[in-house]
Amino acid sequence: MAEKAHEIRLKSRPAGMPNAENFQLAEVTLPEPKDGEVLVRNMWMSVDPYMRGRMYDRPSYVPPFQLGEVLQGGAIGCVMKSNDARFKAGDLVESMLGWREAFVGPGAALTKLPAAGAPPQAYLGVLGMPGMTAYTSFHRIGEPKPGETVFVSGAAGAVGSAVCQIAKIRDCTVVASAGSDEKLAWLKSVGVDATVNYKKGNLLQNVRAAAPKGIDIYFDNVGGEHLEVALEVARPFARFIECGMISIYNDEAPAPGPRNMAYIVGKRIRMQGFIVIDFIDMREQFYADMTRWVLDGRIKSQETVESGIANAPKAFLELFSGGNTGKMLVKLD
Amino acid sequence: MAEKAHEIRLKSRPAGMPNAENFQLAEVTLPEPKDGEVLVRNMWMSVDPYMRGRMYDRPSYVPPFQLGEVLQGGAIGCVMKSNDARFKAGDLVESMLGWREAFVGPGAALTKLPAAGAPPQAYLGVLGMPGMTAYTSFHRIGEPKPGETVFVSGAAGAVGSAVCQIAKIRDCTVVASAGSDEKLAWLKSVGVDATVNYKKGNLLQNVRAAAPKGIDIYFDNVGGEHLEVALEVARPFARFIECGMISIYNDEAPAPGPRNMAYIVGKRIRMQGFIVIDFIDMREQFYADMTRWVLDGRIKSQETVESGIANAPKAFLELFSGGNTGKMLVKLD
Repeated sequence: MAEKAHEIRLKSRPAGMPNAENFQLAEVTLPEPKDGEVLVRNMWMSVDPYMRGRMYDRPSYVPPFQLGEVLQGGAIGCVMKSNDARFKAGDLVESMLGWREAFVGPGAALTKLPAAGAPPQAYLGVLGMPGMTAYTSFHRIGEPKPGETVFVSGAAGAVGSAVCQIAKIRDCTVVASAGSDEKLAWLKSVGVDATVNYKKGNLLQNVRAAAPKGIDIYFDNVGGEHLEVALEVARPFARFIECGMISIYNDEAPAPGPRNMAYIVGKRIRMQGFIVIDFIDMREQFYADMTRWVLDGRIKSQETVESGIANAPKAFLELFSGGNTGKMLVKLD
Repeated sequence: MAEKAHEIRLKSRPAGMPNAENFQLAEVTLPEPKDGEVLVRNMWMSVDPYMRGRMYDRPSYVPPFQLGEVLQGGAIGCVMKSNDARFKAGDLVESMLGWREAFVGPGAALTKLPAAGAPPQAYLGVLGMPGMTAYTSFHRIGEPKPGETVFVSGAAGAVGSAVCQIAKIRDCTVVASAGSDEKLAWLKSVGVDATVNYKKGNLLQNVRAAAPKGIDIYFDNVGGEHLEVALEVARPFARFIECGMISIYNDEAPAPGPRNMAYIVGKRIRMQGFIVIDFIDMREQFYADMTRWVLDGRIKSQETVESGIANAPKAFLELFSGGNTGKMLVKLD
């Protein structure tokens, strides 16, 4: 009997902030897996800020999502049927074929989860793309030294919270900004030294008070005002890890950049953008360190979970209103 | 008989664009050189854009100039009297004690010019701080590869024109911007592949036309609109060498930065500020390569010369109106 599954398609391209109308729930009938193909039922799917970029129709490092087509993203699923010798029913696998309850796809597009003892959904978060993003760039671009001060914006998100804790393991002082006192309390509980609620008071004054000697590393998830503040408080030879600029992803007109760009010259700042695949050579080192840290309890992670494929757009939209603490996940039934 | 000399002092701190009123010509009587001291009569003095920064009263990588005190800057002079065994009358020396016709200072503050056959004033330009700025940062931050495209702003200046020619020696394609057709014609004559007059037409369109495949390295002397354009046309993994931002040095209110900062993330751009002493370890390599290139005629340089200490402020002000091609010098009598 043919299996059916729901999926989410891009109905229209968002202008500015996305909304529910940009998405469409559809039902499809899955074909039988052919030679080399596998039928997977997803258990968890990931929504991530970078997906906003793929909703624009423009050239980028990943191709844009197509109108009327199913969206794609990280997912963890269980193999139901396999015509690929590398997989058998019951295997837990990671794919980039999410935003659907189930799919038939080539075995080559799947990675079997290691049996390390971590919960499966950790491979979408702290042991997955967000964790690897944090780990690789913090070491490779940040070049942290013990005793240095690290400022992390978007610190309660999946990437930011991993950065904060890795920085503590590297004996840095960590200043974290997030948008609610609950998030900041959680960050304090995992060892962050000082916190700033960016929705309260003057951001520059608050960051200055939290980092009176200035900062050596800025991990940027946010852009905008946070970036300007980071330039202001940067010490000479600071490194800026440019991971994302969620504060401007939805701007309809391009927003002016920092008014203090000249500090890049005078303070000899190094500012570098990246995407996680640039550091794929660090993959084994990442899995080894991070798995150990997670199992030892040295790195903790939070999840915000929405249930059911129909709520995937809602989960995605919450990323932009700060609705998530830690990794935003959708649990599929 | 005691010697007399004129010098230029900072009379008032400029607000915005400096003008002649900010400077004061004074005459002093030189003391006799004490033990370890030398009396030097300057032949050439240098004015450079970075000096504008020292006219602000703020903490920076070099201390601010003090009101009522003589200004300091690179100079080439001739030793007249020496009480330091390392120097004798007639030696040509470089110092950072310029903006004066003559001075008595410690021998430790002087460097004897090498007898390489280059004209003395070259050690204020292509073989001096501007040349070393160009050479070190282009290699260390730019990491040029043959066939890459390099965009240089302020390309007719002392640093920019050296960068253009070094990039050609490294087999790069060079696109240069400057503010007059005469400057651009000279840049063409030394091998630059394409030129843009930033005072004519739309800068973005003109740079796109000059570099249709985009740019791999941006050497920034200018900041402002040039920086925004460079971000726009940058190829993935472009390196931005942040040498200076002369277009905004005199802004009274901080100007907004580039509206397209998000490209730093998406295009994985590395943007790095520096000052020349950060690369002091490359000094010997710089002198060896650059002296050979200058004497072989592979690197040419232009000079714009004002005569007499009284014209030093005028020479300095011309830096901001584009009055110089190549190195701006003041010839002292």
